[in-house]
Amino acid sequence: MNILFIGDIVGKPGRQALQDNLASLKKDYHADLTIVNGENAAHGKGLTKKIFNQILEWGGDIVTLGNHAWDKKEIFEFIDDTDKLVRPANFPEGTPGKGLQFIKAKNKTVAVINLQGRTFMNPIDDPFQIIDDLITEAKKKTNHIFVDFHAEATSEKQAMGWYLDGRASAVVGTHTHIQTSDERILTNGTAYITDVGMTGPYDSILGVEKEAVIRRFKTALPVKFEVPETERTVLSGIVVTLDDQTGIAKKVKRILINDDHMRFH
Amino acid sequence: MNILFIGDIVGKPGRQALQDNLASLKKDYHADLTIVNGENAAHGKGLTKKIFNQILEWGGDIVTLGNHAWDKKEIFEFIDDTDKLVRPANFPEGTPGKGLQFIKAKNKTVAVINLQGRTFMNPIDDPFQIIDDLITEAKKKTNHIFVDFHAEATSEKQAMGWYLDGRASAVVGTHTHIQTSDERILTNGTAYITDVGMTGPYDSILGVEKEAVIRRFKTALPVKFEVPETERTVLSGIVVTLDDQTGIAKKVKRILINDDHMRFH
Amino acid sequence: MNILFIGDIVGKPGRQALQDNLASLKKDYHADLTIVNGENAAHGKGLTKKIFNQILEWGGDIVTLGNHAWDKKEIFEFIDDTDKLVRPANFPEGTPGKGLQFIKAKNKTVAVINLQGRTFMNPIDDPFQIIDDLITEAKKKTNHIFVDFHAEATSEKQAMGWYLDGRASAVVGTHTHIQTSDERILTNGTAYITDVGMTGPYDSILGVEKEAVIRRFKTALPVKFEVPETERTVLSGIVVTLDDQTGIAKKVKRILINDDHMRFH
Amino acid sequence: MNILFIGDIVGKPGRQALQDNLASLKKDYHADLTIVNGENAAHGKGLTKKIFNQILEWGGDIVTLGNHAWDKKEIFEFIDDTDKLVRPANFPEGTPGKGLQFIKAKNKTVAVINLQGRTFMNPIDDPFQIIDDLITEAKKKTNHIFVDFHAEATSEKQAMGWYLDGRASAVVGTHTHIQTSDERILTNGTAYITDVGMTGPYDSILGVEKEAVIRRFKTALPVKFEVPETERTVLSGIVVTLDDQTGIAKKVKRILINDDHMRFH
Ligand SMILES: [Fe+2]
Ligand SMILES: [Fe+2]
Ligand SMILES: [Fe+2]
Ligand SMILES: [Fe+2]
Ligand SMILES: [Fe+2]
Ligand SMILES: [Fe+2]
Ligand SMILES: [Fe+2]
Ligand SMILES: [Fe+2]
Repeated sequence: MNILFIGDIVGKPGRQALQDNLASLKKDYHADLTIVNGENAAHGKGLTKKIFNQILEWGGDIVTLGNHAWDKKEIFEFIDDTDKLVRPANFPEGTPGKGLQFIKAKNKTVAVINLQGRTFMNPIDDPFQIIDDLITEAKKKTNHIFVDFHAEATSEKQAMGWYLDGRASAVVGTHTHIQTSDERILTNGTAYITDVGMTGPYDSILGVEKEAVIRRFKTALPVKFEVPETERTVLSGIVVTLDDQTGIAKKVKRILINDDHMRFH
Repeated sequence: MNILFIGDIVGKPGRQALQDNLASLKKDYHADLTIVNGENAAHGKGLTKKIFNQILEWGGDIVTLGNHAWDKKEIFEFIDDTDKLVRPANFPEGTPGKGLQFIKAKNKTVAVINLQGRTFMNPIDDPFQIIDDLITEAKKKTNHIFVDFHAEATSEKQAMGWYLDGRASAVVGTHTHIQTSDERILTNGTAYITDVGMTGPYDSILGVEKEAVIRRFKTALPVKFEVPETERTVLSGIVVTLDDQTGIAKKVKRILINDDHMRFH
Repeated sequence: MNILFIGDIVGKPGRQALQDNLASLKKDYHADLTIVNGENAAHGKGLTKKIFNQILEWGGDIVTLGNHAWDKKEIFEFIDDTDKLVRPANFPEGTPGKGLQFIKAKNKTVAVINLQGRTFMNPIDDPFQIIDDLITEAKKKTNHIFVDFHAEATSEKQAMGWYLDGRASAVVGTHTHIQTSDERILTNGTAYITDVGMTGPYDSILGVEKEAVIRRFKTALPVKFEVPETERTVLSGIVVTLDDQTGIAKKVKRILINDDHMRFH
Repeated sequence: MNILFIGDIVGKPGRQALQDNLASLKKDYHADLTIVNGENAAHGKGLTKKIFNQILEWGGDIVTLGNHAWDKKEIFEFIDDTDKLVRPANFPEGTPGKGLQFIKAKNKTVAVINLQGRTFMNPIDDPFQIIDDLITEAKKKTNHIFVDFHAEATSEKQAMGWYLDGRASAVVGTHTHIQTSDERILTNGTAYITDVGMTGPYDSILGVEKEAVIRRFKTALPVKFEVPETERTVLSGIVVTLDDQTGIAKKVKRILINDDHMRFH
C-alpha cells in the first residue's frame, strides 16, 4: 500500500500547488491513500469548511492539522461532523474533533494519528504518553498506522520516531515548514522523516512574505504576516510503501517540487 | 572556487566519519576550502585543542562553532592563538575568539563568519545587526563570504538567508543536527540551506544515545546524555561553487552519507 | 527628593484607579516627580495619545512603557513629539522614541530610563550592555537616575538591581503585574524592587478577565483576553526618597491599595 | 488551624535561617502544621536524606519540592520510604514519590499537594487537569487542602489560585524565590499568594552568588552557580488560618525576615 502525504498547505499558493499537482502525483506514485496537512490552508492560519472540502475534491482523502488548527473559528462548527479531519490528539479531553481517525485504503483500514510536540511550543498533554494508548486502540483494527507528528524540535521528532519504531508504519514530522533530507526506514520498520516541509509560496519565509519576517527580526516590532501572492511554489511530500499484510514500511520517498528540485529523487 | 562545509562533528563517531571520508570528499568535489563545524566534536560538547588539531590534520582548513563552543573550558586557552577557529560573532564584546576570520583558498581570500540565532535559544546579541558590520568588514578584503548561521528556528535561518541574499556567497544553517533538503541559490546569488545536519552516530537522536533522550521525554527527569559508540555513522555536508571573480554562488550540492543515502545527489 | 512610581496601568479600571488616587498619593508622599508605566493603559494593550494625555492631566509627569508599547499603532504617530514618554531603550537602533528622557523635579534633573528584559521574553538588544552607556550619558547631567526594568524573570531583575547598585538611584521592576515584597536599598545605595505590580481590576488574572485565562490554561485553545469592567481595583506603586545632592536612595516604600491591603505599610 | 509554610530553603544559609527561626515562628504563630519547601536545600539543588531529616528535626512536619526535586540522585533512594515528602504531582505516572500526602494536625487530616507549572518551564503533565482528581481524592478524607504550586509565571499561578478558589484551603506559589505582596483570601475562601519567596542568602540573586549571575547575563558564557556563604539571610513564609470545620481560610499573613523587613506585617 502506498500512502502519499503532503506537507502543510500554506494559503492560496499552497492550495494552487496542491490542485495543480495532486492528481498526477497520486497517479505517479500509485497512491492508495492521500493525507494532507491543512493547518495553514486558509490564509496561512487555520482551515475553513470550504477549503477543507476543496482539499478532498482535489484528491485528498483525509486532512491532518497542528497548532494552527483553531485559528479560523469556524473549524469548531464542522470538525465533529466529519471523520476526514484529524487534530492533534494530545489536546485536553473535551477538545472538539479527534486525534485518531480510521480510513479505508486498498481494502485495508489505516489509522491516521495527529500529535503535537511540546518543546519550543505551547504546553499541551504529553504526546509520548498518549501515543501508547492511541497505538493500542489503532492496533485493535489495523497494523497500518500513520502518524503526523507536528512539532518544532528535531530532538522531539527523532525521539518519537525511534519510540514508535516497529509500532507505527510511519512517523512523519510537520510544522517547521522546511523539508529535511533524513527520510529512512528505522531499524524495526517504521518509515520516518523529521519534517515533510510545506506546500506554498517558494520565495518566502516558511510561506510568509519574506520582507515582513525580516522586518520583524530587524525591528522586534509587531509586524503583520501575510502569505504572498505568487506563482512560484514549492510542494513538499513523502510517499511510504507499506507491506499490505504487516503494515511495515518497505520504501520511503521524499517529494520536493520547486524550480530548483526535480520531482523524483 | 569550491567550498566544502561539513556539519557539526559529534563525538568519536563523528570524528571517525570525518577522518574516513574527508580526503576523498575533498578530492571528489575539488574542494579549494574545507570548513568544519566542530562545536560538538569533543564528547558531543565543545572542542579540545587536540581534537581541533586533528580536524586540521584530517583536512579541515578552518573550524566553526556554535552554542556549545564553551563547553570544554580549555577552549579559552587556545581560541585566541589561532586564526583557524571562528566562534559565533554575536557574543558580547570582550568574548574570546573572533566571529570573522579570513583564509586563503585558490589564491583568493575567503571570509568565514559564524553567527548564532536567538529564537528558542539563549539571549545573545542580535545577529541581524552584527552581520551588516561583518559583511562590510569582509567586503573590504573579499567578495567571497561564507556564513555558518548556527540557529534553531527555520524562520530565523531562512530570514538570514534572504537578508544576506546577494551580499554573502553562502549562508548555511547548523545546530538542529538534521539536514534539510532545501539547498538552493537564492534570487540574488547566495547559496542557502536551512541546516547542513550533523556528522556522527547514525542510529541516535541528534548524535545522542536514543534511549536516554526517549527516557528524558517520557519521564521529565534529569538524564545523562552520551554519544553512543557505534560504527554506523552519518556524514552531512554541502559544497558550494562560487564564481572566482564575483563570489556569487553558481552551484550548491548537498552531501549526505549514511547506509540509507548514496553519496551523490 | 521623592519619586512616586505607579505600576502598569491596565485598561479602564486601571485608569480609574489612577485618576481616583493619584492626587492624594502625590500629596501624602510629597512626590516631587511622578512616573507611571502606561504600556497596558489602552484596553490592556498599548497606549493611545488620548490616554497618554489623561495620565499627564491626572498628575503623571512622565510615562514609561514595555513590551506592549507598540500594540496600539498610533503610538508611532506621537512618540517622537514628546519628551514625556520613555520606551525600552534596548530596542534596535532606529526604533521610534527614546529609552532615556530627562525631566525636571525639585530644581534637579532626573534621568528616567526604561529597559526590557530578555529571559522568557522576545529577543531584543542586551539590556546589560546598553545600560552602561545610558548611565554614562545620564551621569553627564545628573546623579538622579530612575530605571524601570520591564522584565519577566526574577533572576534578570535582581541581577540588574545589583549590577546598577551605586550607579542608579532606583531600579524598579515591572511586567509581571504582581507586586513583590522585597523593596530595599541595596548595599551601595540603589533602591530596588523586583516588581511594582499593576494598577487595574483586582479580581482578575494580571488585569485580564479570570475566566478567560483559566479557559486558556484548561483548553490550550485560543481565547480572547479582555480587561473586565469592575469597580474593585488594585493600585500598585512605590515611593523612593533620594538624597537631593547625591541621588542615593535613603528610603523606599511600597504602595498597595486594594480591599485587602491598607494604604500605608 | 494554623498552617505555617516556609519557602524554598536554599543551601546552607537557608538551612541556618530555618534552624534559627523555626521554633520561635511556630510558637509565635501557633502553628499546628509546618510545611517547608526543600527543593534547593542541598547546595541550592535538590535534597539529601540527611538534610530532609534535619528539616524535620528543626520542626518541619512535611517537605514539598519542585523542579529541582531530582538534582541530588539520592532522592530516588528515600522518596518512597516516607510520607513526609511531596513532589510535584504532575510528573508522569510511574515517577517515584507522591504528589499528595495526608498528615495529621490538630486532630484533623490535612492534604498537602505539590504541583509544578509549565509556562516558561519544562514540559510536564497539565497541572490544571491533575488537580481536579487530586482535590477529589483529598476531599474524601478532608476539607483541609494545602497546595504548593511551584511555577514561574504569575499568570499561571493566579489562574491556579482562582481555579481552586473555594475548593482548596490555600494555594501558595513557590519557585521564583522572590516573595510577592499579594497575599489575600479569594472570593470563595481560598488563601492565596503568588510566591512565598525563598529562605537563604540575602545579598544574592535568588540564593546564588550575585557576581556569577551577573557575569552570566553579561557574557552569555557558561558560569558555575554557587550558594554564597553568608550570615545575612532572608526567611520567607506565610501563615494561613483555616476554619477547623470547613477548611476555609480565615486569615493569611506573610512572613519576611531580613535586615530590611520586620518580622510582623
Ligand atoms: Fe504549518
Ligand atoms: Fe504548525
Ligand atoms: Fe551542534
Ligand atoms: Fe548547537
Ligand atoms: Fe504590563
Ligand atoms: Fe509587559
Ligand atoms: Fe526553588
Ligand atoms: Fe524551582
